[in-house]
Amino acid sequence: MITTKIPVRFNDCDAMGHVNNAVYLTYFEEGKREIFRWFTPSMDLNNWHVIVASTHCDYIHEINYGEEITIYTWISTISRSSFDVEHAICDEAGNWHARGRVTLIGYDYNNKKVVPLSEEIKTILRQHQDEPAGVPELRQIRKIGEFRH
Amino acid sequence: MITTKIPVRFNDCDAMGHVNNAVYLTYFEEGKREIFRWFTPSMDLNNWHVIVASTHCDYIHEINYGEEITIYTWISTISRSSFDVEHAICDEAGNWHARGRVTLIGYDYNNKKVVPLSEEIKTILRQHQDEPAGVPELRQIRKIGEFRH
Amino acid sequence: MITTKIPVRFNDCDAMGHVNNAVYLTYFEEGKREIFRWFTPSMDLNNWHVIVASTHCDYIHEINYGEEITIYTWISTISRSSFDVEHAICDEAGNWHARGRVTLIGYDYNNKKVVPLSEEIKTILRQHQDEPAGVPELRQIRKIGEFRH
Amino acid sequence: MITTKIPVRFNDCDAMGHVNNAVYLTYFEEGKREIFRWFTPSMDLNNWHVIVASTHCDYIHEINYGEEITIYTWISTISRSSFDVEHAICDEAGNWHARGRVTLIGYDYNNKKVVPLSEEIKTILRQHQDEPAGVPELRQIRKIGEFRH
Repeated sequence: MITTKIPVRFNDCDAMGHVNNAVYLTYFEEGKREIFRWFTPSMDLNNWHVIVASTHCDYIHEINYGEEITIYTWISTISRSSFDVEHAICDEAGNWHARGRVTLIGYDYNNKKVVPLSEEIKTILRQHQDEPAGVPELRQIRKIGEFRH
Repeated sequence: MITTKIPVRFNDCDAMGHVNNAVYLTYFEEGKREIFRWFTPSMDLNNWHVIVASTHCDYIHEINYGEEITIYTWISTISRSSFDVEHAICDEAGNWHARGRVTLIGYDYNNKKVVPLSEEIKTILRQHQDEPAGVPELRQIRKIGEFRH
Repeated sequence: MITTKIPVRFNDCDAMGHVNNAVYLTYFEEGKREIFRWFTPSMDLNNWHVIVASTHCDYIHEINYGEEITIYTWISTISRSSFDVEHAICDEAGNWHARGRVTLIGYDYNNKKVVPLSEEIKTILRQHQDEPAGVPELRQIRKIGEFRH
Repeated sequence: MITTKIPVRFNDCDAMGHVNNAVYLTYFEEGKREIFRWFTPSMDLNNWHVIVASTHCDYIHEINYGEEITIYTWISTISRSSFDVEHAICDEAGNWHARGRVTLIGYDYNNKKVVPLSEEIKTILRQHQDEPAGVPELRQIRKIGEFRH
């Protein structure tokens, strides 16, 4: 499980006065920084090896400007060339604000081709499958792993 | 079915050179402008009546800077106080780039309470349940309507 | 003078209910699309030839969600390797909402070096120096501290 | 002088692989959080008392994904109802990446009127006029067309 603290920016909020729904995906993206590093240790953006296949987010409680939130990030399903990254957003008081899942695919940007995950990567992914205590279930009811590349 | 044309902005793209995954939710939001107007004819942001409960997006093909994309938006499940808005993104050549679903809930922002959909709103929603020809299925495998508020 | 129409997005607005100050620079960027094309006719983002040196924006009137605004874009000063792009934002009723200036520099991203403007480019730039009728002056020209409310 | 550390997000970067020019204004906005608190101790966004009148940013060096940058924020000119907020962005190695100025105006959002700064606020502003050592000058002070590459 990866733990990432993010300060909520003024401009993350929309006219409703709370963080806009699209920005939660940006928070999830920040929660994946360490995962990106597993694929690209140099963090060289010209040498990227994953692409987003799908995103899902359940919104539980509004997030306000000025808060510092925590993104919990862990791995669930690991397939041949894709894997599911689970996310949950928690505030400093321990309340859950969102729960999400992002499916990433191993990808070769030069040849625009899906690439199978290496055994080395799969080993690292398996070491990060622990979830935070008390995390809510996704409302998305499909069985985990039912979707395959 | 609502049809919305959106010019892709330079700043919608991230370092991979294509539209960032979070921005698709912003495109979906623009596709819902007419829906927002059904709930708030004045479009007065201090008098808003819906909130986002969950979002899902499947990414099919990259979207590039300078393109003009079309967002198709239609209604699927209608429940007591929530409804599912379906989205699909298509380019000028007729290729599908994304497929999504956003669940909206009738909401009273002053009292922070879920509000049932009026019969008048349900009637309008039912008039917009036609989907675009040839639109791809969501990869999200849960049965439609299985999730209820 | 280049004229660009831009629909204001819901997510362009911040918690004050109007377009956030940073987003005006994004609107200016969209106003420069044709300029970018002069430097990179293919619009290939891996073959870009300009970089932003400075930006200035005076905010005159708030911009609201759902409006369609017009960005006027024209060239003022042309130097050896840089040039000033002037911008003004106008609404459908003819009211001015913002006035800005962005200095661009000819730039070689591979070698991270400033590059002089070609005569061909300078000729095109000189053909776009006409400004819109009635456009307000930049406030920028005050000496520091001269601007008083 | 106010010191604010900000993690650079993946989505802050555009297709050039560096932080987009508009996002610098968002960083400046984050640098002003404490100033917003002087005007609205509760940070209640429905009770805001300042509005942005103009922004200026000089771009010195690119900012990369994954860096943690420091925003230095201090006050220069204080007028009857407006004041200039100076900003500078520095990286962990001590290199300057940007220098900016944002003019804020005391503002009554309900009545859409400029409001003079209180003596209490002016006293606090005067206590934050120290600038960081070695900070570069704004390029803004040139007369139009004076700045040459």
